[in-house]
Amino acid sequence: MKQINGGVTAAQGFKASSCAAGIKYKDRTDMAFVYSEVPCVCGGTFTSNVVKAACVQWDQKIVNSGDPMQAVIINSGIANACTGKEGFDACEATARAVEKCLGVRYTSVAVASTGVIGMQLPVDKLVYGVETMSKSLDGSLEAGCAASKAIMTTDTVNKEVAVSFQVGGKEVILGGMSKGSGMIHPNMCTMLAFLTTDINIEKSLLQQAVSEVVKDTFNMITVDGDTSTNDTLLCMANGLAGNSVISEKNEDYNDFKKALFFVCEFLAKKMAADGEGASKLFEAKVVNAKCKDDARILSRAIVGSNLSKAAIYGCDANFGRFLCAMGYSGADFDQNDVELFFESENGKLEVFHRGTPLEFDEDEALKIMKADAVTVFVNMNEGDAGATAWGCDLTYDYVKINADYRS
Amino acid sequence: MKQINGGVTAAQGFKASSCAAGIKYKDRTDMAFVYSEVPCVCGGTFTSNVVKAACVQWDQKIVNSGDPMQAVIINSGIANACTGKEGFDACEATARAVEKCLGVRYTSVAVASTGVIGMQLPVDKLVYGVETMSKSLDGSLEAGCAASKAIMTTDTVNKEVAVSFQVGGKEVILGGMSKGSGMIHPNMCTMLAFLTTDINIEKSLLQQAVSEVVKDTFNMITVDGDTSTNDTLLCMANGLAGNSVISEKNEDYNDFKKALFFVCEFLAKKMAADGEGASKLFEAKVVNAKCKDDARILSRAIVGSNLSKAAIYGCDANFGRFLCAMGYSGADFDQNDVELFFESENGKLEVFHRGTPLEFDEDEALKIMKADAVTVFVNMNEGDAGATAWGCDLTYDYVKINADYRS
Repeated sequence: MKQINGGVTAAQGFKASSCAAGIKYKDRTDMAFVYSEVPCVCGGTFTSNVVKAACVQWDQKIVNSGDPMQAVIINSGIANACTGKEGFDACEATARAVEKCLGVRYTSVAVASTGVIGMQLPVDKLVYGVETMSKSLDGSLEAGCAASKAIMTTDTVNKEVAVSFQVGGKEVILGGMSKGSGMIHPNMCTMLAFLTTDINIEKSLLQQAVSEVVKDTFNMITVDGDTSTNDTLLCMANGLAGNSVISEKNEDYNDFKKALFFVCEFLAKKMAADGEGASKLFEAKVVNAKCKDDARILSRAIVGSNLSKAAIYGCDANFGRFLCAMGYSGADFDQNDVELFFESENGKLEVFHRGTPLEFDEDEALKIMKADAVTVFVNMNEGDAGATAWGCDLTYDYVKINADYRS
Repeated sequence: MKQINGGVTAAQGFKASSCAAGIKYKDRTDMAFVYSEVPCVCGGTFTSNVVKAACVQWDQKIVNSGDPMQAVIINSGIANACTGKEGFDACEATARAVEKCLGVRYTSVAVASTGVIGMQLPVDKLVYGVETMSKSLDGSLEAGCAASKAIMTTDTVNKEVAVSFQVGGKEVILGGMSKGSGMIHPNMCTMLAFLTTDINIEKSLLQQAVSEVVKDTFNMITVDGDTSTNDTLLCMANGLAGNSVISEKNEDYNDFKKALFFVCEFLAKKMAADGEGASKLFEAKVVNAKCKDDARILSRAIVGSNLSKAAIYGCDANFGRFLCAMGYSGADFDQNDVELFFESENGKLEVFHRGTPLEFDEDEALKIMKADAVTVFVNMNEGDAGATAWGCDLTYDYVKINADYRS
């Protein structure tokens, strides 16, 4: 497997376009279109929030139906959540506009939205956007890149990635894009992520691979502990790579899953590092926990704690806050087994050893914590399970962005 | 029942003192002593954090033993958490110093600490503090007030309250003090709270009343979602009011529980409003939920969300964030049943009605949200259970305080 340039248009048969439909922003693109020349099997995971956006409910229906998926329309600016029947009608109007322009059955068109909750989408602008974008669909890497920019809200950088790997002697490509960067605490999925691949795979196996990989990638990041109403990950596979169809969990399946893991982890880490107001990536790596669930819970608690996040911002080796977060996480353990280290490209330092605080060099700790990516490494010494979670620091800018987000 | 002046020294037979022992702060008092002339029955609740401070473990032993309690020594500056055997030895040394000075058996002396985690307490300073304070124990309201100031860390105001009520023709007094103001997300109890009363009551009933009242008072506040390692509430009852002992759940018990509720709610709301960096009290009132647990979960999720808290700081009527928090709370409900209002001393405004956003006057919303205390009022329309939770807004100052708390 090797990383290659590009994103959602890297795989064969996928095109993209974007436009400025004027939904909320004045001077930037705010709609994106991802399209496959041929129908795709599709896997997806969605928010576990009880308050699901209209578009989430629309997409869940398609993914659960077994119908093919061939197009996704995404808008930024307005989330189409808490919008009642009018919001659901907007999804259908968007999908029907695609049918009218390109002849794709509207039940094969997914829609996704991100932005302010509790505001209605302007349907005329959506339809105008679909008409405009239908004329400029393009398989170039530039078109994919432009799409990844159009779906941004408070993100400061666009997020895309692609890999190439071999399946049964055929080259397969998997690419994707995603966006953050607030209300990020995915639970069964992330904010918005769209993956495209030309692999030939059965739908049920695609869904299984997606569901499993998401657990250790997108579900292990947090920016602010707020699980969004709109979390959506869609993975479309159009089969154009020409490999014999993957219909069992063989070596080909494992190779695909590895590629999927790489792409999802890459995008997830990008989202964490670009969390609202963030100045650095904050990673928690837990090893030797009693079981996988405990390792996940512990590492997420560390990166999810406001006090831990503020300490990371202040480059303060205040390790008690990380132990405190582990303690209320819900996982059971004995503090007398725990070893805790700070780690970055500038070094690694143990600060707590099996129940007792260590005396350590504050200057060395500061040097380690001043890096752009800081890891809290925890050895539980109670088993052999591990997990890694990603978040970011809590800064003045997070408060600033969110105290006047709507206006 | 009527509110009266005072705190932990308001009830008969209770004395307090405080001193500057130089544990961490240079120019302020940092130790407090609460003492009863006669042995007390005692109820207590403690943090559910797996990582429990040494002092929490010490106090739990006393409360569970059935031994009387007669004194509490509290220090601020260092939390005595994550300190191994050395930390536990510091508890015993403190209690033995009290025995030496006042003849109170060391197993009747509770200890409590608040401050930095993972740092050892200077035992010589603790012992010096006990010796100094033993000489100045005093039953005046001023001595109680001084004690409530000595236990503060990042609190900006001290918190104390007292009430007087009748039990079987006798006047009973209940007073208390508590402190916040970060790492506040109590689970079975709050950071530190000490209640003293001269009521005559059996230990098991005192414990029951405390455990029940805490659920709807201290356990309903949050500042930052971080459940501390040190949460401790102790309630000492010395019986000097002279009422016939309360040994069953009769009217006297109910009168005591009402007084206890008033005192705990008063202190809990004070702690929420004085949360680290807070500029206002943020209340969530949920009515007509399916069950009490759901009502508690929903109201806590609203005041616990970083995005909700930032919106409250920015006076932004961004109601979608509150619905989003309810949605991921874990409670099940239908968004099409929900009505959501903003409320304060400046008015009440419905913004979301049974699944649909309402058009509302932004100026009126702003006026309501500019008050010092803002309530999000939610009618679930699905049952008859209610709950109220309290928190505070998320401000620049929260980040500032916690990015350099230790140094």
